[in-house]
Amino acid sequence: MVRECPFCRQPETKVIGENELAQAFFDKFPVNNGHVLIVPKRHFADFFEATPEEMKAMMELLIEVKKLLQDQFNPDGYNAGVNVGAAAGQTVFHLHMHVIPRYHGDVEDPRGGIRKIKPSIVPYLEEEEGHMTD
Amino acid sequence: MVRECPFCRQPETKVIGENELAQAFFDKFPVNNGHVLIVPKRHFADFFEATPEEMKAMMELLIEVKKLLQDQFNPDGYNAGVNVGAAAGQTVFHLHMHVIPRYHGDVEDPRGGIRKIKPSIVPYLEEEEGHMTD
Repeated sequence: MVRECPFCRQPETKVIGENELAQAFFDKFPVNNGHVLIVPKRHFADFFEATPEEMKAMMELLIEVKKLLQDQFNPDGYNAGVNVGAAAGQTVFHLHMHVIPRYHGDVEDPRGGIRKIKPSIVPYLEEEEGHMTD
Repeated sequence: MVRECPFCRQPETKVIGENELAQAFFDKFPVNNGHVLIVPKRHFADFFEATPEEMKAMMELLIEVKKLLQDQFNPDGYNAGVNVGAAAGQTVFHLHMHVIPRYHGDVEDPRGGIRKIKPSIVPYLEEEEGHMTD
């Protein structure tokens, strides 16, 4: 436990699920209603340094959390993902996976989803052999 | 296999890794150099409908792919995540996990990472008890 880490201390928002190696609680600055963070109990920053057991625990908790969110908020979709490193936008260096419920109309054009972290380096065609890619 | 699905057909970009249940290849419309998609071999859309075996296969491939990308592109960080449903920006309905290498300076202010899919519903404070949250 790292005393100055906000995710090592008991989180200030409701814990909605946990297992032996991971914990889930509502994000304090939600992007949308029901925005949850899933964190390992061990303090480390880098998603890719999770042990296979921690990875499994986080993914199992993710599945559980999604069911709870579906019941409570009935969203129309989800984004789930991690920021690894300051260059990727990470600012709290205790690994946390974002689970963000999405609702029809919450942005004008949702297409692309997590691609929106930055503009593409190649032209993003609306139709490519009949398919857009997100 | 679904004939009209671009991820069921042999992908048009280089396959850089695979295992029994999942495959990884470069995104055709990369957000950054080294942008990879990890897809299950079975055709289904919803990340949360992956079997535990498929989930494990994807996560194992993710770890492998990250090592390859680190060697080849030497990025400064990563975003990894999924869009689930049209409301979340999904447009190709064969599950795919984005693995996006990030480079210092690739956006003016990377803070927040995948939060950037939409503006927050609550004020996003730069300092909160000495911590920003991404």
